[in-house]
Amino acid sequence: MSDRTEFRDLASPEEAHETIADLDVGGGTETVALDEARGRVLAERLEATIDVPGFDRAGMDGYAVRARDTVGAGEANPVELELAGAVHAGENPDVTVEAGTTVEISTGAVLPEGADAVVKVERTDQPDEGTVAIRTAVTPSQNVMLAGADIAAGERALGPGTEITAREIGLLSALGVADVSVRAPPRVGIVSTGDELVRPGEDLDHRAGQIYDVNTHTIAAGVEEAGGEAVTYPHVGDDLDELERVLRQAAEECDLVLSSGSTSASTVDVIYRVVEDLGDLLLHGVAVKPGKPMLVGRFAEAAYVGLPGYPVSALTIFRTFVAPAIREAAGLPEGRTATITGRMAVRERFEQGRLRYMPVGLVEGGSRTEPDSRAAAPRESGAGETLVYPVDKGSGATTSLTAADGVVAMEPDTNELSSGERVEVQLFSPSVRIPTLVGCGEDDPALSRLLDQVERPRYLADGSRAGVRRLEDGITDVAALSGPIEPPSDATEVGSWTREWGLLVPEGNPDAVEGLDSLVAADLSFVNRPRDSGLRATFDAALAHLDTENAADEISGYERAARAHESPARMVARGDVDAGLGLRVSAEKLGLGFVSLGSETVRVVAAEDRAGKPGVEALATAIDDETVFESLAGYEP
Amino acid sequence: MSDRTEFRDLASPEEAHETIADLDVGGGTETVALDEARGRVLAERLEATIDVPGFDRAGMDGYAVRARDTVGAGEANPVELELAGAVHAGENPDVTVEAGTTVEISTGAVLPEGADAVVKVERTDQPDEGTVAIRTAVTPSQNVMLAGADIAAGERALGPGTEITAREIGLLSALGVADVSVRAPPRVGIVSTGDELVRPGEDLDHRAGQIYDVNTHTIAAGVEEAGGEAVTYPHVGDDLDELERVLRQAAEECDLVLSSGSTSASTVDVIYRVVEDLGDLLLHGVAVKPGKPMLVGRFAEAAYVGLPGYPVSALTIFRTFVAPAIREAAGLPEGRTATITGRMAVRERFEQGRLRYMPVGLVEGGSRTEPDSRAAAPRESGAGETLVYPVDKGSGATTSLTAADGVVAMEPDTNELSSGERVEVQLFSPSVRIPTLVGCGEDDPALSRLLDQVERPRYLADGSRAGVRRLEDGITDVAALSGPIEPPSDATEVGSWTREWGLLVPEGNPDAVEGLDSLVAADLSFVNRPRDSGLRATFDAALAHLDTENAADEISGYERAARAHESPARMVARGDVDAGLGLRVSAEKLGLGFVSLGSETVRVVAAEDRAGKPGVEALATAIDDETVFESLAGYEP
Repeated sequence: MSDRTEFRDLASPEEAHETIADLDVGGGTETVALDEARGRVLAERLEATIDVPGFDRAGMDGYAVRARDTVGAGEANPVELELAGAVHAGENPDVTVEAGTTVEISTGAVLPEGADAVVKVERTDQPDEGTVAIRTAVTPSQNVMLAGADIAAGERALGPGTEITAREIGLLSALGVADVSVRAPPRVGIVSTGDELVRPGEDLDHRAGQIYDVNTHTIAAGVEEAGGEAVTYPHVGDDLDELERVLRQAAEECDLVLSSGSTSASTVDVIYRVVEDLGDLLLHGVAVKPGKPMLVGRFAEAAYVGLPGYPVSALTIFRTFVAPAIREAAGLPEGRTATITGRMAVRERFEQGRLRYMPVGLVEGGSRTEPDSRAAAPRESGAGETLVYPVDKGSGATTSLTAADGVVAMEPDTNELSSGERVEVQLFSPSVRIPTLVGCGEDDPALSRLLDQVERPRYLADGSRAGVRRLEDGITDVAALSGPIEPPSDATEVGSWTREWGLLVPEGNPDAVEGLDSLVAADLSFVNRPRDSGLRATFDAALAHLDTENAADEISGYERAARAHESPARMVARGDVDAGLGLRVSAEKLGLGFVSLGSETVRVVAAEDRAGKPGVEALATAIDDETVFESLAGYEP
Repeated sequence: MSDRTEFRDLASPEEAHETIADLDVGGGTETVALDEARGRVLAERLEATIDVPGFDRAGMDGYAVRARDTVGAGEANPVELELAGAVHAGENPDVTVEAGTTVEISTGAVLPEGADAVVKVERTDQPDEGTVAIRTAVTPSQNVMLAGADIAAGERALGPGTEITAREIGLLSALGVADVSVRAPPRVGIVSTGDELVRPGEDLDHRAGQIYDVNTHTIAAGVEEAGGEAVTYPHVGDDLDELERVLRQAAEECDLVLSSGSTSASTVDVIYRVVEDLGDLLLHGVAVKPGKPMLVGRFAEAAYVGLPGYPVSALTIFRTFVAPAIREAAGLPEGRTATITGRMAVRERFEQGRLRYMPVGLVEGGSRTEPDSRAAAPRESGAGETLVYPVDKGSGATTSLTAADGVVAMEPDTNELSSGERVEVQLFSPSVRIPTLVGCGEDDPALSRLLDQVERPRYLADGSRAGVRRLEDGITDVAALSGPIEPPSDATEVGSWTREWGLLVPEGNPDAVEGLDSLVAADLSFVNRPRDSGLRATFDAALAHLDTENAADEISGYERAARAHESPARMVARGDVDAGLGLRVSAEKLGLGFVSLGSETVRVVAAEDRAGKPGVEALATAIDDETVFESLAGYEP
């Protein structure tokens, strides 16, 4: 029985890499049809078993001749040969080229017996039906591809380990190979643990703390990206006997078993017991953040790695430590270089003492020439450069998966990255491309639609005040601000529109809310938006105009803040509150009553040096187009 | 009816690009299950329909508290709270946190009613069973992820056009999305024409000029690489009614129809007629080499492009002109940058007047420092640089598909690339990687096996003399030379072995061949190896030792040269000749008689500045290992 205190003897990341590399992650061979072979990896050397072409083949449309019959022929003094017949591609020649004769031949046709060269049709003419005038001399084999000249039987055609692309499919076809022996992808079983997990598509019980199972599908996709075959096992709850049964089944059926999820003591104990019953637990915890609770072991026939439970952590550890072993077993080339160098847009501090993988986003800096660009010290602002900013929406946030482009590995002996410092970013995959537009600000349904017109936009709807802060930090290209929130003085306006706001109430307005006064006077429960929201600032400004002093104090729920523009509407619809701050468009979408309190302006502004970026220009064009506003209730361009 | 003379009015490559881009290559939308969504492209904006998390969620193992109850708590002066119960992940809390009480809580569990923060377990202890000592103060929401903090209902989650990777699968899972609306791949029909084509796996009749159908499978794989769905139509022979029927069927069933193969006048006439019956022929021929006979047209419901017949030409034209339209229709990002800059290893001359795509191979130059590296003019030899060499095994060679790494586009107004000139190579795909070893020389079955130990080797078995020439040209890293062929004086030996050679005769040696004398004396038909072969040089040296003067003239078939080491053996086995020049290993493989004439040495030598390349070192290690030689008859290390 393993001692759980061993968790404290963390293995180094290098040990973890080596231990996983030493596990046998399997991968035999299998035979697939040519049409299924694309993307697979050849298991064995392939030698040609036939000559290609299989016969001496005409390389041109023209006339098959004996080369020696054409000696001395030229434009001025053609040699006349007797036309003895014709051969087309795919025909067995029924004619022989004797001295003084010729045979009409098509490209690809079999060179008839007796002939050893082809004169191309452009260098001939036919003075009469039975005669061909040859206007050039040819040498033996001219305009002929000899049997085996492309590749001959016994020659090496392709080596083991070759990845099969369209080009290899071409060569295999030419050799007549219909079935190909390829490396079998390693089978990777995925067992997610946790009583709270529900499969996507099923219903959630929020009250019971249920969440959708993220890791099973994410890691399965990661396994496939690495060339493995993912086998997902129904997630197991807190039934420890069931967990043990599933682990044993996965160990039997797969080359590698991954578990992720619950790190509860009792679950980990079951995993320890099963792994040690069937094989060995080799590593208990690794000195890396995230990923400390990583387990590495061996079953009788399978390898085992336990991943952390949070999705971003699980995927980071999977990519860093596990994917290379799967690629190796699948015979796929080591991951192509997928790093990019950039400068930190902001300072980042962190605890030292452990290798840390920090998820980061990327943004292209502006192209404005810095006035003091001749200064020797690295500039904090990166004109035209790739800027790197930390993405941390908190442990367990799944949106970090798509808000980040890669990770920066931070060494254990440092505790700070300064703004402007050069860092190397390991992209999540070689196909990651930098967003053309990075923005932050007000959550607005029109903006959400406008962003559809921009290629690869990234937008954080953290509120207008957050938008200003991020723009000032030099991270974002644009900010969307609503109400009284003022942009930084050097920002450039990209476009603007107005939206109708007010109080969301249940359908039919059962409490007969008439405006802000009713909210203050009646004992209604209310839900507000967060402090960073521009709409909240608009609401506060309206409250300040009321006769009631400190009207906010009179509103029950004024401090209750719901994150997104639609959140208050949903709370009203669910009956959680009597009224909420929101937009006409949300009331219409959810079939609620709406008490209009006015219109506020939403302005999109760009950092001065980013206004010319293609993504910013695309957004400006989309705003100018106005069609989005026509489709949304309460909106005006 | 179209006038075929229009072929002479060639369209420019730009017109061809534009015409194809303007064709509607289709691509609707379809719904796929989450597990099938990887690699697909989102058809529509996706907004969250639930809050994630759906409840206020504990971010730590610890104790749920009312933050105001912890005011003033610290290590020295803990606050004691009454333990009122426990909540684990996936449980519906059955307890409320009243003032002065606390509830044990697990990471991921629902924050119970009344509580607004979590104190992590490390900052607490339990003086007795019913009491918890809180040793730190917490603020409201501390260690809690509020409902919707990750993403809230109504927020923009993913935009249209997003390629779905493991990360997007993670976000979709978190949102509970089980089915995803994605872009449907355009259906691309492939019709290969040509009476001589046979499907891989079936038997070929060489005498009738049959060859395997290469283009159907190659282009189908290219279509899939570009994100399309390939639909292959049984290849059609010279039956023009059948061709018309298949074209009409493909036009009805597909978004884009590609034909390739026969450019015979009658076939082209049928294609013209069908395209013009159903729609329009838009382009007849393009000023590009290869690719002149390219056709572009429109059926009623489908686009049409006619590709050239030779596989390398067909694939080059497909990649250059057609793949971008398929990627666009599939919603896949424009092809990632897949170009590499290198220097021409040799001079290449060509006819000017038309844009030309030249297939090229790549090789890493050596790292030796050039003595005159300070010279201003570009050096012809590229120490440590990527060198580019033309690959031209002749029109119709399928091995060019795998012998090349990409193409160089040569402008119509030039007719030469000089050695050392910088060129940009368009790689066949972003995953193309430069061979670690490029060699040329003797065709040898041991070498063929030794190359299995080298990553991505490329070897042309064009004979020992070709090996010397290519090494001197600075193209190859190594040459394999056999018999009396001498390496360049500055080459470095990598390794060597010997192989037993002699005369291959039918099983049982029916003509009682005893040696070279019998070959000269008896009237036997013989097959030799090509002039570049080292084995032929060994044979010539042995003939020179005979008493017969000009012995070669006495041998019937001395000038008949079979390309590969095994080719003479196969001719003997087929009964085409009475005897052939070859190796004991070939005789044993094919069950032939063998008259030994001695052993010759095969030497592998490296260019002086390439001997340290990893590929060369891997080959040296494989030669030293000797196991390959033990498995081959007649071989000695």
